[in-house]
Amino acid sequence: MDRYENLENIQVRPDSFECSITADITVFGYVDNKLKVLLLKKTVGDIKDHWMVPGGVMEAEETIEDCASKVLHALTGFQNIHFEQVRTYSSIDRHPLKRVITVCYYALIKPENHPLTLRSNVQSIEWFDMDKLPDNMGFDHRKLIQDAYAFVQNNLRDRLVVGELLPKQFTLPELQNLYEHILNIKLDKRNFRKKMFQMDILKSTGEKKAGVKGGPLLYEVKQL
Amino acid sequence: MDRYENLENIQVRPDSFECSITADITVFGYVDNKLKVLLLKKTVGDIKDHWMVPGGVMEAEETIEDCASKVLHALTGFQNIHFEQVRTYSSIDRHPLKRVITVCYYALIKPENHPLTLRSNVQSIEWFDMDKLPDNMGFDHRKLIQDAYAFVQNNLRDRLVVGELLPKQFTLPELQNLYEHILNIKLDKRNFRKKMFQMDILKSTGEKKAGVKGGPLLYEVKQL
Repeated sequence: MDRYENLENIQVRPDSFECSITADITVFGYVDNKLKVLLLKKTVGDIKDHWMVPGGVMEAEETIEDCASKVLHALTGFQNIHFEQVRTYSSIDRHPLKRVITVCYYALIKPENHPLTLRSNVQSIEWFDMDKLPDNMGFDHRKLIQDAYAFVQNNLRDRLVVGELLPKQFTLPELQNLYEHILNIKLDKRNFRKKMFQMDILKSTGEKKAGVKGGPLLYEVKQL
Repeated sequence: MDRYENLENIQVRPDSFECSITADITVFGYVDNKLKVLLLKKTVGDIKDHWMVPGGVMEAEETIEDCASKVLHALTGFQNIHFEQVRTYSSIDRHPLKRVITVCYYALIKPENHPLTLRSNVQSIEWFDMDKLPDNMGFDHRKLIQDAYAFVQNNLRDRLVVGELLPKQFTLPELQNLYEHILNIKLDKRNFRKKMFQMDILKSTGEKKAGVKGGPLLYEVKQL
């Protein structure tokens, strides 16, 4: 008989299998032409002395998004950070204590706007270069970061999702620089500009950048 | 005191809050130049007599992806369907019986390859035009479908994700037709072709379509 012929096992019943849910937030920053990711070590919890992205467990009275805001604030002090879902991970053995699925988010922030401080229950917090991640990472967080990074790269190719990575007004060379460092490729200046204008997402401010040779034009991202 | 200052509430403990997880799969098909979505009514379960996308609850020994395959097969008979995560929904009151979060997927299939049959515990199963969804839909499934549709539209703009929507070999007019109906816009033929070749994802088969005036060239999607 077909293993799945009987549908009784796929109804939601009061005694349906349950597990804990966590939110993990991969926070990217862009400093000195390098893409960096925020990692921390906790003083409590299941895997101490391993680097992890900020994350924690969802409670009964909150959504996963509430949970993501809460844990990010608790562990970093950051507030009002915009984040987007990447994907949900549910491997059976991904947590040593019990079955835990995690919903992973990414955020793009400007590190100088959010100075790092040691919050309670955090023993270390640091920005790591994406190409120099530490060896001892907790759970499946290396995979989470790699997936979030691929997600950001794809979004960058298709849309202009720069979050706080650039100031509100920026020049085309600054934008190209960001693309080159995140996508890790060298771009042709003329093709890059053509593509940006085809995407129709930039608005000229009519102003020029002060203090820079040639005074390049400043642009903003169009409000959609 | 900062509500979240104390981190004890975000550790995963054996007694951490748990809830049930479901997988819901929005299956799109493309028939007679219309994008359609597969809905069904169950004979059992929490909301009978409401149209829903195929879905069901994750068990202890399976991942969410295993669960998605299982419920899709159980409710439709479909096997080996490729699906992708859209996003995870966790509103507190989205299920009347208990706290349930759902991970939503989408699939693109060719309905003629997958004839509909009534499986056990399903009282009705039908393809609905995207612009004629029924009024009585269960849970938040109307929102799930709208989000999955936006996701497919975005992917279509940025990449060529046609799944089974087209035959293996297709003409450029057939491809443009698909785009126009899914994006719900009229496209300029010359610009469309230019964009498709810029994306560099089509491979000419060197063959022409038989039985069609002009014998237009047949293309395939490049294997990446």
